[in-house]
Amino acid sequence: MPDRQNDEAATAAFAPPLLGEPYLLTPGPLTTAAAVKQAMLRDWGSWDGDFHALTAELRRRLLAMIGDTQGEFDCVPMQGSGTFCVEAMLGTLVPREGKVLVLANGAYGLRAAQILRTLGRAHAVIDKGDYLPPRGEEVGAALDADPAITHVLAIHCETSSGILNPVAEISQAVEARGRKLLIDSMSAFGAVPADAGTLRYEAIVSSANKCIEGVPGFGFVIARKSALEAARGNCHSLSLDLHDQWTVMEKTGQWRFTPPTHVVAAFIEALRLHAAEGGVAARGARYVQNRDVLVAGMRAAGFETLLADRWLSPIIVTFFCPADPNFAFPRFYELMKAKGFLIYPGKLTVAESFRVGCIGHLDATVMRAVVAAARQSLDEMGVASAAPAPDVLGERAALVA
Amino acid sequence: MPDRQNDEAATAAFAPPLLGEPYLLTPGPLTTAAAVKQAMLRDWGSWDGDFHALTAELRRRLLAMIGDTQGEFDCVPMQGSGTFCVEAMLGTLVPREGKVLVLANGAYGLRAAQILRTLGRAHAVIDKGDYLPPRGEEVGAALDADPAITHVLAIHCETSSGILNPVAEISQAVEARGRKLLIDSMSAFGAVPADAGTLRYEAIVSSANKCIEGVPGFGFVIARKSALEAARGNCHSLSLDLHDQWTVMEKTGQWRFTPPTHVVAAFIEALRLHAAEGGVAARGARYVQNRDVLVAGMRAAGFETLLADRWLSPIIVTFFCPADPNFAFPRFYELMKAKGFLIYPGKLTVAESFRVGCIGHLDATVMRAVVAAARQSLDEMGVASAAPAPDVLGERAALVA
Repeated sequence: MPDRQNDEAATAAFAPPLLGEPYLLTPGPLTTAAAVKQAMLRDWGSWDGDFHALTAELRRRLLAMIGDTQGEFDCVPMQGSGTFCVEAMLGTLVPREGKVLVLANGAYGLRAAQILRTLGRAHAVIDKGDYLPPRGEEVGAALDADPAITHVLAIHCETSSGILNPVAEISQAVEARGRKLLIDSMSAFGAVPADAGTLRYEAIVSSANKCIEGVPGFGFVIARKSALEAARGNCHSLSLDLHDQWTVMEKTGQWRFTPPTHVVAAFIEALRLHAAEGGVAARGARYVQNRDVLVAGMRAAGFETLLADRWLSPIIVTFFCPADPNFAFPRFYELMKAKGFLIYPGKLTVAESFRVGCIGHLDATVMRAVVAAARQSLDEMGVASAAPAPDVLGERAALVA
Repeated sequence: MPDRQNDEAATAAFAPPLLGEPYLLTPGPLTTAAAVKQAMLRDWGSWDGDFHALTAELRRRLLAMIGDTQGEFDCVPMQGSGTFCVEAMLGTLVPREGKVLVLANGAYGLRAAQILRTLGRAHAVIDKGDYLPPRGEEVGAALDADPAITHVLAIHCETSSGILNPVAEISQAVEARGRKLLIDSMSAFGAVPADAGTLRYEAIVSSANKCIEGVPGFGFVIARKSALEAARGNCHSLSLDLHDQWTVMEKTGQWRFTPPTHVVAAFIEALRLHAAEGGVAARGARYVQNRDVLVAGMRAAGFETLLADRWLSPIIVTFFCPADPNFAFPRFYELMKAKGFLIYPGKLTVAESFRVGCIGHLDATVMRAVVAAARQSLDEMGVASAAPAPDVLGERAALVA
């Protein structure tokens, strides 16, 4: 944080979890502020005006985050996990006769394609594997080659690898061809800018338990009102019908079906803390610092990142597992957990890896402690070098060349 | 409670909400115990073994509640509201070429039909209006008349009116004809018996924030393993696919997509309190007492219930609005709220009414205070008599004759 004087101040501001509770270095659910959890200590009547006011504040604050000065967008929260919201967005905003180009470079892009397959909606996939971002040029070429494509789905930050995809150039390619962009910004929204003034999209989706640092239980889609209005009758599901959810909420101030009231109350507190910290820019700056401290420390300890610096997101970082035969991920996980840190397994198809999240209610002081714990865990396992197998690095080099 | 000596003991056991927080006399979200909310004061890694243990305990305790001694059933929790779970059950367990007979006597039966319409699944509806239960005999006749019907959907307690439907005789009619029964026990499960040994069903669905007194954010389907096994590929949705959710949970101990971790932790505490109170029988007995105190007190104050005693559930009771021109529900609601009680608007199609829930962390002492608050509110409104319009009662008498 630019205005922090020293580590002591940082430690005070980012108080550790309760005794015995580990830090969650995962891409959500993540470590949240005590005040966020304390906001769940009361019960709310979902039909009552006091709760309607929370819902209205939630929608207003999220819309403000994209700088929608023209009032062109609206925000529709939806019960369930992030995937429920992605399915709601695809099922509602893509007409039944539409066709979606899915830009995949990891599990979440492939999951979007799986959703479309389940829904029986036409789609095509550009699959870049684990290492590489989809680029504007190839998206443009694919759109030129297939005029049937109406929508493009891009993953903002693909947490499988931690790659920050180039949504700005993708957006330009899509807009230039008159198609519509849908952004899965699940793990980026609130920390990576998604200004409606500079980035052209039809809708963007995220969830409560990512960079806004709430607890899990719902997500939200921010969509152009024109898209929501045109979406009546598109959806394959009653529960996930974003158009219905929107029209009922507009009319009554209520969620159509029982909302996760406590999770919503926690999210309001998280939104207020997000604003108090300085909004998207400050939240992003803290995560960038978390990542930089983590990556520098882990590299100094001998670990290698999957990605080149250019594509490293401030959200989560993938490290190759050390080639040393004494290294075993399950043991490393337990040793890190015993030191108070839950890390995350890898999700790559091509190499053994693990991931460390940079998001949540934690700062550079915590990240230094993570690095120290990783070093100590290697020592305890008798791992002499954290370097990955040479062939893994060779393969990566060949792919990114 | 049978073992309570006096009101003081009851007050101590059912401590009031925090200062300024009203009791929720609604069919969920409802007033929960402080310990349930306090269980949300820590963050859980959804991938971690500690959280897997919570999920396993949740499934085990819910299965125990139906007395599944043969191990024929399994419990699959699902993110979202209760409606999400009803949709998941219908979409997954009814084959695409199946046909469902929906037994409706209120909003929730009609919503199930709406789900089937959205999914494009064949269905028929027996609609009994607001006052009357579907009876075994007419269900049997409908099944005899239409051999294409594969499944019957019954609402256990229809909270639109508060009617407790006769699921035992419905179950017998369905079983005798070799069809399959699906029970929406949203607002009854955990307080009204649903023993697998005495009631024959294929699946039963409920949610976290009803009679088990958790907070909202997920629900669960308890289904025959044979039905879950046969359901592969049925579902119209990725997110709501109960078969997928089940197989992944069986294999990994994890929810397929991010679970509402804090809500799950609160539910575990709620399940433990449910068991400590004495399980389904004791929970049901407390709610029966709540209802009896409420109904007797409100009748003494001049209010009339929608339903005859025989059909009154221990979950929620519908009262007709007084005919007195000084009575206005919005003002009555605000006066009750100012006294610390959130009541619930009516959901009838034929008459002005309101509802008072009997479920949640509250007891007879609270219900007596509710009655006193209702009397006082009438006084403040200048309502001389709480009696409904004679034509409303005449209409009811004609219908239930």
